[in-house]
Amino acid sequence: MGRTSDAQNKILDAAKMLIEQRGYSALGVAEICSTAGVPKGSFYYFFESKQALALTVIDDHWAAQRQQWVELLSSDHDPLRRLRDLFEATENVQRTAQQKAGLVVGCLFGNLALELSNQAEEIRDRLQEIFAAQIDLIERVVVEAKDLGLAGASIDTRDTARSIVALMEGRALFAKLLNDPAQLEALWRNCLDLLQVPAQARAN
Amino acid sequence: MGRTSDAQNKILDAAKMLIEQRGYSALGVAEICSTAGVPKGSFYYFFESKQALALTVIDDHWAAQRQQWVELLSSDHDPLRRLRDLFEATENVQRTAQQKAGLVVGCLFGNLALELSNQAEEIRDRLQEIFAAQIDLIERVVVEAKDLGLAGASIDTRDTARSIVALMEGRALFAKLLNDPAQLEALWRNCLDLLQVPAQARAN
Repeated sequence: MGRTSDAQNKILDAAKMLIEQRGYSALGVAEICSTAGVPKGSFYYFFESKQALALTVIDDHWAAQRQQWVELLSSDHDPLRRLRDLFEATENVQRTAQQKAGLVVGCLFGNLALELSNQAEEIRDRLQEIFAAQIDLIERVVVEAKDLGLAGASIDTRDTARSIVALMEGRALFAKLLNDPAQLEALWRNCLDLLQVPAQARAN
Repeated sequence: MGRTSDAQNKILDAAKMLIEQRGYSALGVAEICSTAGVPKGSFYYFFESKQALALTVIDDHWAAQRQQWVELLSSDHDPLRRLRDLFEATENVQRTAQQKAGLVVGCLFGNLALELSNQAEEIRDRLQEIFAAQIDLIERVVVEAKDLGLAGASIDTRDTARSIVALMEGRALFAKLLNDPAQLEALWRNCLDLLQVPAQARAN
C-alpha cells in the first residue's frame, strides 16, 4: 500500500473509534469518511472495501497491543507479577477509554469475534490468529510459573492460558455492559485460582 | 399485546435466527419479514420497532433459558454436580445449534451485549438484568457448596459466581470464533479452580 498518508490515518482513526462505539455492521463508508473529514473518493484509493479497512484496523490494533503484551510479559518481574501487570494494564486501557469517551469500549477483538464470526471468513481467520497469539504469550509465562513451582504442578499450561484469555474476554464483556472498568479487577484473583497457586504463596 | 398469533411467532423465530447468525445491526425489518414469510405490514401490527422486537426476542430466550437453569441448578444433585450439569447443558445447546445450522451461535445475550451496550440503552438495561439474574442463580449454588465445605472456605460467593458467568461468556466466544462447542468443556475444570475445590474432592 506504500507510504501511509495523512488521509489514510484519519480514515483508520475514525473507523477504529466508530467500530469500538457501534460495531462494524452499523457503519457505512460515507459515515467513516465524514467522521474522518476526508472525501469519500479517497476511501477507495486506500481501501478496497469496508472489510479491508476493518482488517487494517484489527492489524494496527493488534500490533500496538502485542507490543504492550510482549513488554509486560517479558519484563524482569516474576511470572505471576507479569500476569498481574498485564491485567492492570488491560483495566487501565478501559479506564482511559472511559475517561475519554464516557464509555468502556471493551475488547475490539472480542466485539468483532461475536459480531462477525459467522459472516466474514477473513475477519474470523485473523481474529483466530490473534487469540492464538495471545494464548501463546500467556502460556509462556504460565510455563515459567509452573517450572518455578509458583503454579500448581498438575495444571495443563495450554488450557490454563486459554482460560485466562477467555476470562479476560468475559470480564471485558461485563466491563462494557456495566460501563465499569472495575469489572476487570477480579482477573488477578481468578488467575491465581486457575493457576492453582497455593494460598501461602498469594500474599503479594 | 394479547394472544400470540402465528405471524407474530414466525417473526420472532426468524428474528432470533437472523440475530444469532448476523447480529442486530445488520438486519432490516424487510429481511426479517421475508424470512418469516409474513407481509411487512404485519410487522408493525405486532412490534413498534426493530428494537421492540429485539427486546421480545431477548425476553423469550431468557424465559426458556431461565427455566432450564432453574431446573438444573435446583435438582437433587449435590451443588458441584448441578454446576457441571449446567455447563454440559450449555455445551449441548451450542452443539445442537451447530448440528442444525452448521455454526456455533454463541450466547445471544453476550453477542448483543458487545454489539449494542453503547448504543441501545433499553437493551443494555435488559441484558444487565439478565446477567445479574444468572449470577444470582449460580451464587445460590456456590453458597450451598461453600456451606457444605465442598468449596474453599475463603471464597467470595458473589465474586466467584460472577467469574463463573464471565468464563461461560469467554468460552462461548471461543466456541463461536472457532466454531467448536468443545471449547466449553473446560468450564467444569475451571469452575473447580475458581471454587477452590481441594484436589482430593475432585475425583467425580
